[in-house]
Amino acid sequence: MTLVVDDIGLLVTNDPALGAGPLGLVRDASVVVDDGVVVSVGSAGQVADERIDAEGACVLPGFVDSHTHLVFAGDRAEEFTARMAGSPYDGGGIRVTTEATRAASDDELRVLTAARMAELHRAGTTTVEVKSGYALDVDDEARTLRLAVEFTDETTFLGAHLVPIGYEGRADEYIDLVCGPMLEACAPHARWIDAFCETGAFDVDQCRAVLESGRAAGLGLRLHGNQLGHGPGVQLAVEMGCASVDHCTYLTDADIGALAGSDTVATFLPATDFSTRQPYPDARRVIDAGATVALATNCNPGSSFTTSMSFCIALAVRDMSMTIDEAVQAATLGGAAALRRTDVGRLTPGSAGHLVILDAPSHHHLAYRPGVPLIRQTVR
Amino acid sequence: MTLVVDDIGLLVTNDPALGAGPLGLVRDASVVVDDGVVVSVGSAGQVADERIDAEGACVLPGFVDSHTHLVFAGDRAEEFTARMAGSPYDGGGIRVTTEATRAASDDELRVLTAARMAELHRAGTTTVEVKSGYALDVDDEARTLRLAVEFTDETTFLGAHLVPIGYEGRADEYIDLVCGPMLEACAPHARWIDAFCETGAFDVDQCRAVLESGRAAGLGLRLHGNQLGHGPGVQLAVEMGCASVDHCTYLTDADIGALAGSDTVATFLPATDFSTRQPYPDARRVIDAGATVALATNCNPGSSFTTSMSFCIALAVRDMSMTIDEAVQAATLGGAAALRRTDVGRLTPGSAGHLVILDAPSHHHLAYRPGVPLIRQTVR
Repeated sequence: MTLVVDDIGLLVTNDPALGAGPLGLVRDASVVVDDGVVVSVGSAGQVADERIDAEGACVLPGFVDSHTHLVFAGDRAEEFTARMAGSPYDGGGIRVTTEATRAASDDELRVLTAARMAELHRAGTTTVEVKSGYALDVDDEARTLRLAVEFTDETTFLGAHLVPIGYEGRADEYIDLVCGPMLEACAPHARWIDAFCETGAFDVDQCRAVLESGRAAGLGLRLHGNQLGHGPGVQLAVEMGCASVDHCTYLTDADIGALAGSDTVATFLPATDFSTRQPYPDARRVIDAGATVALATNCNPGSSFTTSMSFCIALAVRDMSMTIDEAVQAATLGGAAALRRTDVGRLTPGSAGHLVILDAPSHHHLAYRPGVPLIRQTVR
Repeated sequence: MTLVVDDIGLLVTNDPALGAGPLGLVRDASVVVDDGVVVSVGSAGQVADERIDAEGACVLPGFVDSHTHLVFAGDRAEEFTARMAGSPYDGGGIRVTTEATRAASDDELRVLTAARMAELHRAGTTTVEVKSGYALDVDDEARTLRLAVEFTDETTFLGAHLVPIGYEGRADEYIDLVCGPMLEACAPHARWIDAFCETGAFDVDQCRAVLESGRAAGLGLRLHGNQLGHGPGVQLAVEMGCASVDHCTYLTDADIGALAGSDTVATFLPATDFSTRQPYPDARRVIDAGATVALATNCNPGSSFTTSMSFCIALAVRDMSMTIDEAVQAATLGGAAALRRTDVGRLTPGSAGHLVILDAPSHHHLAYRPGVPLIRQTVR
């Protein structure tokens, strides 16, 4: 089937060979998609089975959200409300989600996950990474990932999310479980492995053990690090060749140098900093050093219950010193790099025909019009 | 015609006599609306011409947006982009909008305004104040207000928005025009008069002259003040008995004391502070002193191009030390107070049947889920 999107006022290709600047901007463009793959950009007048008139609006690649925790049950609005009224955030609330998720049936989790996926799609996101990490036992971690696979190819085993109830003071034993039977049960359903390297979660040796076991099982590597304070996460991620290290709020010059000299993407999750009243990362330093950056929602019920990449872009521009062009690219091409994908996050011949038509003449409106749902149509 | 909204999981009435706490929360509620007026809250099983099943969701009064500049032409995304990349904001960009607005036909302005009104409605806002102030000559200010009246009863003459081209160094002469022929042409189409009391706009004597002339012409009074620095705006607003003084970012203890001892509402416009990288007001001090506060979008193409009251609520909670309950009340009942309206901003017998059904079980989700369009249905 051939789809032509034409009368595009401004097209973001993310390919400098196709258009102006780093975003490869093309004015008055069309995109031809054949069986889900872009076959040409810029040509018009093609014969098509389906035609979408963008009516002069801006079109960009669908957002690539490389960090979500989408399969969960329960609601933590009360915890959020308390935190906003002044209670400190210590992350302990994850256990509330763990209990609710374990207790939910497969079908309950399917319905909840499908609704969140639909919300992401309406918000313009066409590629979504989904982590486990709210079950924290062998059977339920594997169940989470089996369910996640029904919705996305980008599934991540995050058994090392936190030390679960029953393992207090025995984190090493829990890590043995994660690296052994849990990994064995989960690896068939996962593309990636991840761990939470932070004071209060797991230390650098525990995280290294998890990543090494995951690599041995054939999984790609990613890491949570440097969210709540300085720490070894970024250095470990670079040492291990992780595709991405996520949060990156507290970075030393050495951390930034390590990122810049690697192909590990620094993924920022500014909606988390918004919803936990943490400082925002200084993306400017990281970009200026030459590292690749991404933006992701970190959609989860505790620290960032948003599906809106547009919101993350607006925050990145307002509070992380990113230009709008940088933020839009980080939400598309950057997310793709964080998932080691070259087929999404861009609109070039051969890439996936995943695109977003805005209710706006320019991608700049994603930051210029904060809070406004500007996604007219998502094509996937 | 009778409308029943039932199966409401949580109803915000804003009437402590009807339910729990300052928000008058009622669980498992229904609302009966007869010919556009609420006739009962809490009763169910009514005979109705139309029935809406809220399916257990949260219902609240439609938002009251007491500060917008909705009638304008042109786009200032480039100015926004430049400002975010580091150029200072001096407000001079208003002249760009003035030229475009003067040049637009009535029908062009109608189409643009209707689209923005529809966007506000989709975002849950059911009462909208609209200011003039982008024409700055007699005929076009009157034209702006004639067009605004087609969309709302809450129209505000803001001839004293800034000194227009042609009056440089002659602000007093321009104020004479505003208080004389311009007011005469505009008053028939306006409920309110407003002025911009700020260094770079108009001084306290000029603003007092505008407000006095407006009052003599039968208009209600409002004022922009204390946005970019400390100044006399708040004190003038209280002295003149303005319904509201808007921005209120820079407040002295004396300003707060004056507000607390008056019935002038302090209206905060946090999306403006977001989009201009200004500091946020400290709402906590103002609320704790006992003043009435409101939230509004200040929707305009220069400093705050959003229609999303939900976004303002999320910012107020994150960055202005307001609780979620306070922010939701400021966006409904507070906005109504800023317009001296007792028929909107609440859902009580006798009030307007303007309500919002959320895609969420609680109004807390408006801050808990930032950037997510949670308005399932707006009823007006």
